[in-house]
Amino acid sequence: MSSGSEGVRETQGRLLEKVLEIVKREQLVTGIDPSKKVIEFMHPEELKSLLALNIGREGVDVNEASSTLEKVARYSVKTQHPHYYNQLYGGIDEAALTGAWITEAFNTNQHTYEVAPVFTLVEHYMIKWMVRLFGWSEGDGIFSPGGSMSNMYGMVLARYKKYPEVKQRGIASLRPLVALTSDQAHYSIGKAASWMGLGMDNVVPVKTDRWGRMDPEALKEAVKEAKEKGKDPFFVNATCGTTVLGAYDPLMEIADVCQEEGLWLHVDACWGGTAIVSRTYKHLLDGIERADSVAWNPHKMLGVSLQCSPFIVRHQGLLHESNSASATYLFQQDKFYDVSYDTGDKSFQCGRKVDAFKFYFLLSLHGLDEMERRVDAAFSASRYLSEQAGKREGFRLVLEQPQCTNACFWYIPPSLRGQQEDEQWWQKVGKVAPKIKEKMVKAGSMMIGYQPVPQKGLVNFIRHINTCYPTPTHEQMDQVLDEIERLGADL
Amino acid sequence: MSSGSEGVRETQGRLLEKVLEIVKREQLVTGIDPSKKVIEFMHPEELKSLLALNIGREGVDVNEASSTLEKVARYSVKTQHPHYYNQLYGGIDEAALTGAWITEAFNTNQHTYEVAPVFTLVEHYMIKWMVRLFGWSEGDGIFSPGGSMSNMYGMVLARYKKYPEVKQRGIASLRPLVALTSDQAHYSIGKAASWMGLGMDNVVPVKTDRWGRMDPEALKEAVKEAKEKGKDPFFVNATCGTTVLGAYDPLMEIADVCQEEGLWLHVDACWGGTAIVSRTYKHLLDGIERADSVAWNPHKMLGVSLQCSPFIVRHQGLLHESNSASATYLFQQDKFYDVSYDTGDKSFQCGRKVDAFKFYFLLSLHGLDEMERRVDAAFSASRYLSEQAGKREGFRLVLEQPQCTNACFWYIPPSLRGQQEDEQWWQKVGKVAPKIKEKMVKAGSMMIGYQPVPQKGLVNFIRHINTCYPTPTHEQMDQVLDEIERLGADL
Repeated sequence: MSSGSEGVRETQGRLLEKVLEIVKREQLVTGIDPSKKVIEFMHPEELKSLLALNIGREGVDVNEASSTLEKVARYSVKTQHPHYYNQLYGGIDEAALTGAWITEAFNTNQHTYEVAPVFTLVEHYMIKWMVRLFGWSEGDGIFSPGGSMSNMYGMVLARYKKYPEVKQRGIASLRPLVALTSDQAHYSIGKAASWMGLGMDNVVPVKTDRWGRMDPEALKEAVKEAKEKGKDPFFVNATCGTTVLGAYDPLMEIADVCQEEGLWLHVDACWGGTAIVSRTYKHLLDGIERADSVAWNPHKMLGVSLQCSPFIVRHQGLLHESNSASATYLFQQDKFYDVSYDTGDKSFQCGRKVDAFKFYFLLSLHGLDEMERRVDAAFSASRYLSEQAGKREGFRLVLEQPQCTNACFWYIPPSLRGQQEDEQWWQKVGKVAPKIKEKMVKAGSMMIGYQPVPQKGLVNFIRHINTCYPTPTHEQMDQVLDEIERLGADL
Repeated sequence: MSSGSEGVRETQGRLLEKVLEIVKREQLVTGIDPSKKVIEFMHPEELKSLLALNIGREGVDVNEASSTLEKVARYSVKTQHPHYYNQLYGGIDEAALTGAWITEAFNTNQHTYEVAPVFTLVEHYMIKWMVRLFGWSEGDGIFSPGGSMSNMYGMVLARYKKYPEVKQRGIASLRPLVALTSDQAHYSIGKAASWMGLGMDNVVPVKTDRWGRMDPEALKEAVKEAKEKGKDPFFVNATCGTTVLGAYDPLMEIADVCQEEGLWLHVDACWGGTAIVSRTYKHLLDGIERADSVAWNPHKMLGVSLQCSPFIVRHQGLLHESNSASATYLFQQDKFYDVSYDTGDKSFQCGRKVDAFKFYFLLSLHGLDEMERRVDAAFSASRYLSEQAGKREGFRLVLEQPQCTNACFWYIPPSLRGQQEDEQWWQKVGKVAPKIKEKMVKAGSMMIGYQPVPQKGLVNFIRHINTCYPTPTHEQMDQVLDEIERLGADL
């Protein structure tokens, strides 16, 4: 057939082969040599002129296209590098990438069985699998485009469950609705409240203990206070694995409060939910079976490629009731097959990218024993790192041990040791982590995050996280401490 | 390095090679032979038992994994088939898939320059490029995970612009906010109103003419009525390319009304926005330069793979003001590089998949002349199809000609010709399209959509759409009519 041949620079697969060549050469899914650079850093303006981005009337030839791909390869951060420990996500392995590539190749829109027969069944299977995994006897779910969106799904369902008329009539006639979450929770709870018309002021930050875990007594008190102010608490977000400290909120006690007060319990397990796969660490999630809804991002720790954000809910049918718009052009009831597999009317989105297959393929190919080994290795390495940091001179732990895979500590350079630890001193310590990070990125040796926790009066500290692939080793953890010492020695 | 070697079935690229082999063999990006099947249909339960989905404690070997990939290939709909004309999206070419594959391989989260240097600059470039493309001198934007989300972005910004205090305080103290859109608009406007707490009842469906275009006088009247009811109109959604009829709302006249009444004008150009690339058809979008915000989905017609949904807005800085939550762990201001490239705080999402690169790569590789040729070919083929259908016995046009690439018509089988066209007759005609569709899918020869328009009293008709890749030919359009005749002859 002749379609598209005019003017198109047919490369018959050469560009796709080029990508495969890059993936192999750069060891993206087979394990990058740790001595290679994580990043070859350039400042934005420099990189911009080097990339020379341009869309013209004329196209470019295959060689120029290949050279663009090479620049992407050279200047992109190698998130698969064993020393990439940033921003709560990391590498993917060959199974994950294979799943992603075939999904991309078939370019399927996941809204009806008609256009996505295989992928619809896979999503259906994965939702049911997760419903069981989190300990429910029934439930439903959807793959959403990220944790923020999943958290908003939870809040929307909670509001709909309490006030179904909101879907049609809005919240104008209701008392102000209040959502409660810990002061260490992800900011997406606030953003959801803003978008949903509740306002960020109606998100009550509940006090946490020094481990960053929500205090159930404080939650109870906050609910009471909100009611006394004439407001209407309806939703509690508990976090499993907070962004910074990796805290797991005490779900059982929170669930008790929610039950007493008639509040929806949503669990943001985007980061720490992966512990569910490990028989050793799943106790961290005890009580999640009592949640009304759960957000989990296997793309954060489990090595599924972005985006992979299942949202699951214990109430069968509620997603559909809450979101259906019954568009006649898409979800006809006069189709000749069983339309109960058409998912488009239960999601906020109309079209959706296929996110379930790569997740299925990863789990199915490796098996759960292997996934558990990876999870255990990640958690264990973080515990080892924290232990070692506690023993080394110049390191100061923020918490005695990691809860999730977040190991948090300060590095105190020799020039600041043995001094009086007053506020001024801490201000100086707070400048160390950014400086180490800068040197680290410029050296390209590692990438590790840092941040303060102003609510707890903690200045900038290093937050090291582990993900499950490349599976971290204890040896690498020692290298992390060595490198921080090396870079921080003369600060 | 040894990471991940324990228990992992290392295939050293064999699975990725397998995907490439499938892509080539199935001609997914090089043009599928039209005589091949679009779909090998199976009912859900049959397909389910054939797929035998399973996640066990043990994994599977490479051969079994390959066999899963082969099943995906065999039973998935070939959206790249020249006769796939369903659901407003279609094929992708090699450039698009290359861009998608390399994006997947680097598994990058697009929120800070630090972790996504190349892709952040590419997104920045593409946003600026689109701002100019739609005729604005300045503006901002974000790649969102779909058109529904982009439309909600528009509505959120409109509300924030009018009432900035909403972000913190919510809408509880405001008069009911009202959004206006045509009765042919996408249902996501209603869903956004539901999620945002306005309620679907506060979306006023504005009357359309017989072409499905919003009547600006009716809009004016609807604004007046809403005000008289004590409500607060703030947002108008105009559509460029409605889902069913492909109607382009008259933007100039709508912009006049919005200007007079002080309303935000959002344009849902998700489907029809691609006309902007063609000097012949861009006039359909005249007036879009007066919009406050635009949603466009190049993944629908232009052959970028899913998801690619830029949202652009004319007001510099508004996205950031409206959405920022200033999370200290992510968007530190004490970083050592120019943080103005960090995009995470202007989006609703925290992490975001990279959607801009594949779009850039497609346009840059082919050049705009080639993209224009493809757009012109798609629009021209739809006009030809409609013309031919108008001439053939047994076909009845819904509209004299397509506005976008939607060609809408009924097929009247011989058994129904020459009869009195009363309501009963039309009921019978309404059963023809589903029947033809069923036969078509079971034959696997083509996929074409159908639906009714109840608001206009139109029973089920065939809606044929063209996308830009594989670029449709007039010959294919003749084949479409032949096939419908063949399948419908004995109904």
